[in-house]
Amino acid sequence: MPRALKPEKVRPALPSGFRDFGPAEVRRRRRLLHTLAQIFEQYGYEPLETPAVELLSVLLGKYGEEGDKLLFRILNSGDFLAGVPDEATQSSTTLLPYITDKALRYDLTVPMARWVAQHAGELVFPFKRYQIQPVWRADRPQRGRFREFYQCDVDIVGAEGIVPLLEMIDIARAGLKALGIQGAVLHLNHRALLEYAAQEVKWPAEQFGTFCARLDKADKIGWPTVEALFREEGYTLPAWLNPGLDVSEALFNEIAKVPSLQSDLSVLPSLLGSSDEALRVKWDPTLARGLEYYTGYVYEIRVPGSGVGSIAAGGAYASLVSDFGGPDLPAMGLSFGIERIFALLEDTGASEAGPSSVLVAWIDASPTYVQHIVRTLHAAGQSAFAYPAPKKLTKQLEYAQRRGFRWIVIVGAHEEQTETAQLKDLHHHTQQTLPLHALAEACQ
Amino acid sequence: MPRALKPEKVRPALPSGFRDFGPAEVRRRRRLLHTLAQIFEQYGYEPLETPAVELLSVLLGKYGEEGDKLLFRILNSGDFLAGVPDEATQSSTTLLPYITDKALRYDLTVPMARWVAQHAGELVFPFKRYQIQPVWRADRPQRGRFREFYQCDVDIVGAEGIVPLLEMIDIARAGLKALGIQGAVLHLNHRALLEYAAQEVKWPAEQFGTFCARLDKADKIGWPTVEALFREEGYTLPAWLNPGLDVSEALFNEIAKVPSLQSDLSVLPSLLGSSDEALRVKWDPTLARGLEYYTGYVYEIRVPGSGVGSIAAGGAYASLVSDFGGPDLPAMGLSFGIERIFALLEDTGASEAGPSSVLVAWIDASPTYVQHIVRTLHAAGQSAFAYPAPKKLTKQLEYAQRRGFRWIVIVGAHEEQTETAQLKDLHHHTQQTLPLHALAEACQ
Repeated sequence: MPRALKPEKVRPALPSGFRDFGPAEVRRRRRLLHTLAQIFEQYGYEPLETPAVELLSVLLGKYGEEGDKLLFRILNSGDFLAGVPDEATQSSTTLLPYITDKALRYDLTVPMARWVAQHAGELVFPFKRYQIQPVWRADRPQRGRFREFYQCDVDIVGAEGIVPLLEMIDIARAGLKALGIQGAVLHLNHRALLEYAAQEVKWPAEQFGTFCARLDKADKIGWPTVEALFREEGYTLPAWLNPGLDVSEALFNEIAKVPSLQSDLSVLPSLLGSSDEALRVKWDPTLARGLEYYTGYVYEIRVPGSGVGSIAAGGAYASLVSDFGGPDLPAMGLSFGIERIFALLEDTGASEAGPSSVLVAWIDASPTYVQHIVRTLHAAGQSAFAYPAPKKLTKQLEYAQRRGFRWIVIVGAHEEQTETAQLKDLHHHTQQTLPLHALAEACQ
Repeated sequence: MPRALKPEKVRPALPSGFRDFGPAEVRRRRRLLHTLAQIFEQYGYEPLETPAVELLSVLLGKYGEEGDKLLFRILNSGDFLAGVPDEATQSSTTLLPYITDKALRYDLTVPMARWVAQHAGELVFPFKRYQIQPVWRADRPQRGRFREFYQCDVDIVGAEGIVPLLEMIDIARAGLKALGIQGAVLHLNHRALLEYAAQEVKWPAEQFGTFCARLDKADKIGWPTVEALFREEGYTLPAWLNPGLDVSEALFNEIAKVPSLQSDLSVLPSLLGSSDEALRVKWDPTLARGLEYYTGYVYEIRVPGSGVGSIAAGGAYASLVSDFGGPDLPAMGLSFGIERIFALLEDTGASEAGPSSVLVAWIDASPTYVQHIVRTLHAAGQSAFAYPAPKKLTKQLEYAQRRGFRWIVIVGAHEEQTETAQLKDLHHHTQQTLPLHALAEACQ
C-alpha cells in the first residue's frame, strides 16, 4: 500500500450507524453464526454468498417506496456528470438516475432470487440455501438499530406446505437450543385463514391489507382495543380470532373450513400441543407480517419478557425468482434476527476469551533459539509466540498477564547454552527449569 | 420483506467486476480462510472486523491520488443536492465533496490503524491482529481482477526487527504448508540496504524513489536490462545487487556495513541457508515494494512457474496509527493474496462437495412420521431432511441422486404402521426394511 501523500492527522471515527467488532466480539459472533450454519447444513441447506453491491435494476421496486429510499447508492466512478443534461442537475430526484446504477445489498432474499434465476438450469429443485452476510440500510441510526447488520436466512425454493413448515420450526428450535435461548414462542398463522376471517366479518375484499394491518396490531395495543376499533366501524370480530385464547376447539373448527388448510389439520394439533422448553408453537390468528409478500404460512418467534421483539420470522411466499425471468416456484424461508439474538445473549452471556497462548519471553538468548522454542510448542499443538524484542522481563511478564495467559517460557543465554527453559506458571506463581523436550507437556 | 410494487421482470445480472459464490465455492473458500485463521490464532493474533463503510476523511490521502479515484463512494442519502451552491454542480470535481462523505473500505490496514488509534488506551501493545474481509476498488475489471475481493492480513503494531520477521516468515510457511502450496520463494530485502546501495552508486538522495522503482523492475525486465539502464545514465551497479546470484559472501559483506542490519547478521545466514520445500527464503537486493510506506524489512512470496504473481507480501512500516492521533509505533505486516491463492489452488484442486445428507422420501406416510424419522437421524448425528412433498418416488430418488447422496429412507403408510422404514443404498443398489431403532446405524 504505497502512500504518496502524508495526510494531516485525522480524527479516527466511524460513520454513524456503523460498528467495529473487536476480538472478543468477533469470536462470540462467529461462534453463534457457526452454530447456526451447522444446523442449516444438517438439514441439507447449502451456503451461498453474493456480493455487497447489486445493480439498482435488480434492487429497485423490491422493498417498497420506503425501501428504495433506504438503499445506500454507489456514486458512478470517474466523471459522473459527463453527458448529464443541465436540467437534470436541478434536483436530487432528476439527477439520481444519471449518477448511480449500483447500491449496497438491502437484504439476502432478492440477491438469492437473482442468483437462482441465473442458475436455474443447473440447480436441483427444491433448492435449499442458507446465507449469512451483512446488509446495509440508510435508516436513521438508533439504539440497537444499525446501518450495517447481519442477516441469517434459510430458504427452500420449489416447495410449500406442512413438511417445509415442520422443518423450519425444527430448525428454529434446534437453533435456539444450541444458542441457549429458552422460553421462546413461535406465533403461527396462515394467510388463507386471514382471508377467511375477512370474508366472515364481511370486510371489503379490496381492503384486505388494512384488515390484516389492524389485526396485526393486537400484539402491541391489545386485543380489546383491536376489537373496539373494528366495532366502531360496524364489524364484529369472531371470538376465535382472539390471540389471547389458547388453541381452542373453536379455532380448529374454523381452520377446518379453510380449504387450503384442511389437509394440514392432522398435523396441527400435535404441533400446537407439544410443550418444548426451547420453542413452543402457538397459533396466533392475528399474525399478518407483510402479507403482500407472503402467500401461505407465516411465523414469528418471540421471547416473552426479553424486550427485544421478534428474534426470527418468515413464511411461505411466491418465490421472487420469476421476477428475474426464472421459473415460478413456491418458496418458504426463515430469517434469524441475528443482531437481536446477539443483543439478547449479550445481556446474559460471559465475554469470549481468546485461546490462551504461551508467551516466550527472552532476554539475552538468540532469536534463533527463541524461534526454535516457539516451533517446539507449535509442534505439540500449542498456541505460542515470542515477545518481539528482548525488553525488560517485567514488561514481558506484564504483557502475558494483561492478555490473560497462564504460561511464560523464559530464556536467556544460560538456557540457550544448556538447551533448557524456565517455565513460569502465572496462575500458581511457580517457576521451574526444564529441558526443551519436557517443555510442551509441562504447560498443558 | 413486504413488497408494495410488483416490478416488471428484470434481467438478473451482477455489476461488472462482482462475483457470486455458489455452495461448492463458498465451502472451498471458507475452508482455506479457516485454515489460515487457525494459524494466525496459534501465533497469538486476534480477529478484528471493521465495517464495509468508512468516512472519506479517514480514507482519502492514504492510498495516493490513484487510490482516491478507485474508492467506491456512497452517495449521501435523501435530498443530497439540498444546500449545494449552483456553481458546484458545474463539474464532477466540484460537486463531489458535497454529495458524498463515505466510501467502501479499500484495504484492511487503514481501518485497523483507525481502530487502534480509537482503542489505544485499552490495548496491550504489541497488538497482534488478523483480519479477513472483503475490500472494494473501482478498478477496471479484468481476468482475475475483481472490484470486490478478500484481503487476509496479519499485523503486529508496536514491534519491529528480526523476531517479528521470523514470525511472519514462519506464519507464511505454515500457511502455505497447510494449503498444500509447494516450492514458494520468499524474496527478502531491507530498506536500509537499498539506501546504502543508492549511496554507494552516488545516486541523488532526493530521487531515492526512482532508484528503487528501477531496481524493482529486475523481476520483470531482467537484471542485465536494469544494469544497462543505470549504465546509460552513468551509474554502475555493484555486482552484489544482482538478484540472480545466490546469497554470496559479497552480499553479507555489504549487509555488515549497514548499521541497522548488523545486529541481524547472526540470524540471516541460517534463515537464507535453510531449504524448506514449502518456503525458501532468498535475499533479493532489488526488491523494493512501495517504499514510501515501508521502513525496514520488505518481503514478497512468489511461486515460480505458477503464473499468478506474488501470493503474499508485506514488511515493516511506521504504523499509520499516529496519522489518527494514536501513538507512534513501528509495525510489521503480512498480507496473503488470498484471491490469487484461490486461483492457484483452483487449477489443481478438486471441487468441494457438501456434507452428504440422508434423504427421507415419502409417499403416503404422515408428515409427523416423516418428521420423526428426520429427528431420529439427527439425534444420531446425521445430516438428514425430508423431501418437501410426497411426490412420485422416482422424482424423489432423482433428487437424492443429483445432490450426490448415498442413502434414501423411504416410508409409506405400511412402514408407518409397522414403525419401520426402507433404506436404499444408491451406491450399492441395495434396499432393506429396517425397524426405526436400527435405521441410523445402518446408514453410516
